Amino acid sequence: VARDAEFFRSSKGFSAMTGAEVSAIDRGRRVVTVKMAATGETIEHGYDKLVLATGASPVKPGFPIPDDPRVRPFQKPEDAQVFRRMAEAGKIGKVVIVGGGLIGCELVESAAGLWGLETALVEKEGHILPYVLDSEMAAMAQRHLESQGISVMTGCEVDRIKSRGEAGLQVGIEGSDALEADFVFLALGVQPNVDLARQCGLDIGPNGGIQVDRHMCTSDPRIFAGGDCVETTHRITGKTFFISMGSLANRHGRVIAEILAGGNEEFPGAFGTSFLKLFDYNLGATGLTERRAAASGFKPRCVWGTFPDKPDYHPEKRIFVVKMVYDGDSERLLGLQALGRGDATRRVDVFAALLQKQATVGDLFDFEPGYAPLYSEALDPLHHLAGMARARQRGVMFRHPGHALSSEAGEIMILDVREKEEAAAKPLPAAVAECGCDYSNIPLSELVERSSEVRRDKRIVVVCQRGSRSYQAALFLKAAGVHEVEVLGGGLQSQL
Amino acid sequence: VARDAEFFRSSKGFSAMTGAEVSAIDRGRRVVTVKMAATGETIEHGYDKLVLATGASPVKPGFPIPDDPRVRPFQKPEDAQVFRRMAEAGKIGKVVIVGGGLIGCELVESAAGLWGLETALVEKEGHILPYVLDSEMAAMAQRHLESQGISVMTGCEVDRIKSRGEAGLQVGIEGSDALEADFVFLALGVQPNVDLARQCGLDIGPNGGIQVDRHMCTSDPRIFAGGDCVETTHRITGKTFFISMGSLANRHGRVIAEILAGGNEEFPGAFGTSFLKLFDYNLGATGLTERRAAASGFKPRCVWGTFPDKPDYHPEKRIFVVKMVYDGDSERLLGLQALGRGDATRRVDVFAALLQKQATVGDLFDFEPGYAPLYSEALDPLHHLAGMARARQRGVMFRHPGHALSSEAGEIMILDVREKEEAAAKPLPAAVAECGCDYSNIPLSELVERSSEVRRDKRIVVVCQRGSRSYQAALFLKAAGVHEVEVLGGGLQSQL
Repeated sequence: VARDAEFFRSSKGFSAMTGAEVSAIDRGRRVVTVKMAATGETIEHGYDKLVLATGASPVKPGFPIPDDPRVRPFQKPEDAQVFRRMAEAGKIGKVVIVGGGLIGCELVESAAGLWGLETALVEKEGHILPYVLDSEMAAMAQRHLESQGISVMTGCEVDRIKSRGEAGLQVGIEGSDALEADFVFLALGVQPNVDLARQCGLDIGPNGGIQVDRHMCTSDPRIFAGGDCVETTHRITGKTFFISMGSLANRHGRVIAEILAGGNEEFPGAFGTSFLKLFDYNLGATGLTERRAAASGFKPRCVWGTFPDKPDYHPEKRIFVVKMVYDGDSERLLGLQALGRGDATRRVDVFAALLQKQATVGDLFDFEPGYAPLYSEALDPLHHLAGMARARQRGVMFRHPGHALSSEAGEIMILDVREKEEAAAKPLPAAVAECGCDYSNIPLSELVERSSEVRRDKRIVVVCQRGSRSYQAALFLKAAGVHEVEVLGGGLQSQL
Repeated sequence: VARDAEFFRSSKGFSAMTGAEVSAIDRGRRVVTVKMAATGETIEHGYDKLVLATGASPVKPGFPIPDDPRVRPFQKPEDAQVFRRMAEAGKIGKVVIVGGGLIGCELVESAAGLWGLETALVEKEGHILPYVLDSEMAAMAQRHLESQGISVMTGCEVDRIKSRGEAGLQVGIEGSDALEADFVFLALGVQPNVDLARQCGLDIGPNGGIQVDRHMCTSDPRIFAGGDCVETTHRITGKTFFISMGSLANRHGRVIAEILAGGNEEFPGAFGTSFLKLFDYNLGATGLTERRAAASGFKPRCVWGTFPDKPDYHPEKRIFVVKMVYDGDSERLLGLQALGRGDATRRVDVFAALLQKQATVGDLFDFEPGYAPLYSEALDPLHHLAGMARARQRGVMFRHPGHALSSEAGEIMILDVREKEEAAAKPLPAAVAECGCDYSNIPLSELVERSSEVRRDKRIVVVCQRGSRSYQAALFLKAAGVHEVEVLGGGLQSQL
């Protein structure tokens, strides 16, 4: 069903004017000035209540963009169409995507995965997906992109783009060699369109969006705003931020409609729950990253785990890595980041539901998911994460998977608690094998008897394949009087 | 890693005695009497704390079971092995499964789906999965089994099974013809093993399981119990019931271990969250069914919806039907039942998380799932269900998909709000086409203009393919002064 002006008239009973641009709002007289594209005519239109849904526009880079159809943002259907036509005609060999946020990463997947093009991604921040993931989780995502042949550059800024006609495009990077490209997508994010709101004197928030209250009402009680043009309250920090999501915009619309119809609906703000497909990886996140939690005044503690999405004996099981962030004082849940071939999205949605009700680590233990081997394990990854958080609260430290072991080589002994055959069959990843630390393999099944072999003069970093046996071993060692014990978060699986 | 006595000794540091049956508990002296299978010797073993994990046994039918290996429960690996050996040898043509609960339905899937055998399912209650689904949802599950060639008989009881040697088995059914079979599985559920507990005078609950408190402690403060031998508190009703689930047993074990180690862990009870695969259908449920909610003193109200698990334009989208039960007074969420080819399990797990925090219909609106078209729609099915519940609270009635229209043929006008082309392309299901009611097709897109055509002298039952347009239409008609409006729950899709 096409949702054109006629649809809204006949099925919803209201008139939608198209080709009609509002150029000014007169709040005193309660009229908007409308310029009609078809006739060039300018009319005035009165209102009792007014809703602004002016959306957002792509952020422009800090340098002039050449007037070349091969350099463009990704916002309108036309952007995709131009790309597609050129790709189909074989005119694109190399693509450069500037900006490694959600849209940038989706474009990488299309360019390389769907079209098989040589693709480079350039992200200004220190890691890709900076608003969604912490650095060590982003490193795993980046490694996966690289395994698919994508060139990923982080911490470096594009400072010019040159159009050289038939010879293609040149993308200049500060302090580095320029990249050649046949097509450049600028995916630098979007900024709220607030010209009209600003011009008529509505309050604009600290992040550049229209400021609204819980009823989506602006600083003028007759004017409401929703969608990508508004600021959003973060449901954990209570501070406003800017987030652009079709799903949130949709819910804004419903809240505003209820309010206009005399209801008392509220929009509660957002956690920033996000899903992303990266080739055969599923990626999901909700709530605060560790970095953001710390910046927001929490005392974030983190645990990491690698889990199968079905029991290990199931031939279709796939694994995923999860990081959970919670507050060390209150044990309130703060955020979850998950990625891998396994179905990470179900746990992220569950976690978002728990965040909504201000759940704690204890609530995670009490979560009762469905269990059938075709769908899940008897103990859910969320239960395991709760167990790890409890161990952490009892003093078992979890080592950040992104923290280099080599920097403390002299002080650390790596205790590999995998079974002997397993350790022989699966070699240590380079980050561990080459870190220069002392290493010992005492399988968990022998640890009770051989615990005297564990050195007391070094910090023990316990490792296993996925991280769940390690924390059992660490709990045991703690109880056995080994005080300096850490678990390698996420296990060997999550190491580069 | 095999978890034998040696594993527990070496990796956990405790001794597991196997081949050792406890025949009596002396609570006064705090000793258990143990009979050693290997030697025939009987020893006494003292305890400070004792944990009972005596499990459950298959419920036996009310008639004698023939001594024939082809008639058996499904509990031990041996049961599956005998079946498998016979099936591989081509000795099974027809299978009868007595009992249509979760295990019975899983067996149906194995016998018919995996082994391609002619399979009949006999359920004593009025519908299959009586503890998991309400009747109309069970009817959809049954229809799906039948579409796979399964013969399903409900509301009828097996009253004898005869072994006829080479001629196979005969399964007698009260008031009906006997069924021929080459193999019979008795899946009548399980009952807790409480002989030891009863013998030493521990309290047994009203459902036949050992009674325990929130710390899994029995009526003797030195004795704990967990797993299938205990009663469980329902997390909504607060009453005890009996439920047998590996996932719950696993969590019992952790709670008991914490308590024994000096902690203060609690087991919160259960919602009965269940997943089941029925051929290519996913089935999930959590919380109270409508019937159980009513029996527990709630005022259950229900809404039904049919949803795709991804946006409609996605080639891999699959649909599923959902029933939501909530309390009409408090708007507290009570239960969810979902089934279909789509991924129903994610929403069931999310709903279980919300139930845990005593969430309301309003909380469902505020749920913030991840959104990306590869995984979900901009508005989640749970948001739509919340919208329907709100409409219901405003007086739009939802008609039970299992309620026959034909019984009120003279009083009802069916208003089909599907678009004309759609109505022409997808014929009405028999339950609607042949119900004898007046019928009119006024597409939603024309309803505002043509609302005067809607009769005021009949009850209007609005239908569309999935049920979501119907409730919009019903809300509009209500506002337009048509008082007797009902929505066909779940849409035409959910009709037989």
